[in-house]
Amino acid sequence: MTDKNCIFCRILAGEIPATKIYEDDKMLVFKDIEPKAEVHLLAIPKDHFKLLSEADETRAEILKHMLLKIPQIAKDNGCGNGYRLVINQGDDAGQTVFHLHIHILGGEILPW
Amino acid sequence: MTDKNCIFCRILAGEIPATKIYEDDKMLVFKDIEPKAEVHLLAIPKDHFKLLSEADETRAEILKHMLLKIPQIAKDNGCGNGYRLVINQGDDAGQTVFHLHIHILGGEILPW
Repeated sequence: MTDKNCIFCRILAGEIPATKIYEDDKMLVFKDIEPKAEVHLLAIPKDHFKLLSEADETRAEILKHMLLKIPQIAKDNGCGNGYRLVINQGDDAGQTVFHLHIHILGGEILPW
Repeated sequence: MTDKNCIFCRILAGEIPATKIYEDDKMLVFKDIEPKAEVHLLAIPKDHFKLLSEADETRAEILKHMLLKIPQIAKDNGCGNGYRLVINQGDDAGQTVFHLHIHILGGEILPW
């Protein structure tokens, strides 16, 4: 699924530029334009959905694929000494883009 | 796999008390004893492994199961208005217990 008003779908479509780090048929990883750490990447599924609560079997399979890929991607991009994954869901978490995404933060000692 | 020196494995074995929120054959969710938010739960796989980079197909399948279960667990436990999932990996992220775990934070507006 694609949402033409979604900024991440537009990045996927090449309509908005992004510094792409990794891409395959199921996912894209690119640099966050407002980094909150020395390394701050965003990993997104190519299938547009807003929330984890909307994940069915197929979407969960994509998330599984992403979790299997992320360690090497993190290691290859300055997170050899560890990293933090963050998934913000909904208003209380300050989710700003409603296309599910996994923040990958690292490259420094992260405060809690 | 179980590690008898691991605090989370000992919680799973009933040797250390914890306030259990949800349990099935693959995972356990319990309250963090040092909560960093109004709601702070820890979701762990019953299989002991330290890092996402050690996840093979079987372990990734367990993580998928956890991601599918977490939205309802979060909603049922005071995170109806959103929540944040955090996975700390290694030293830079301040990982303290080396049994993979997913923090579930919510119950309030979370600062970034």
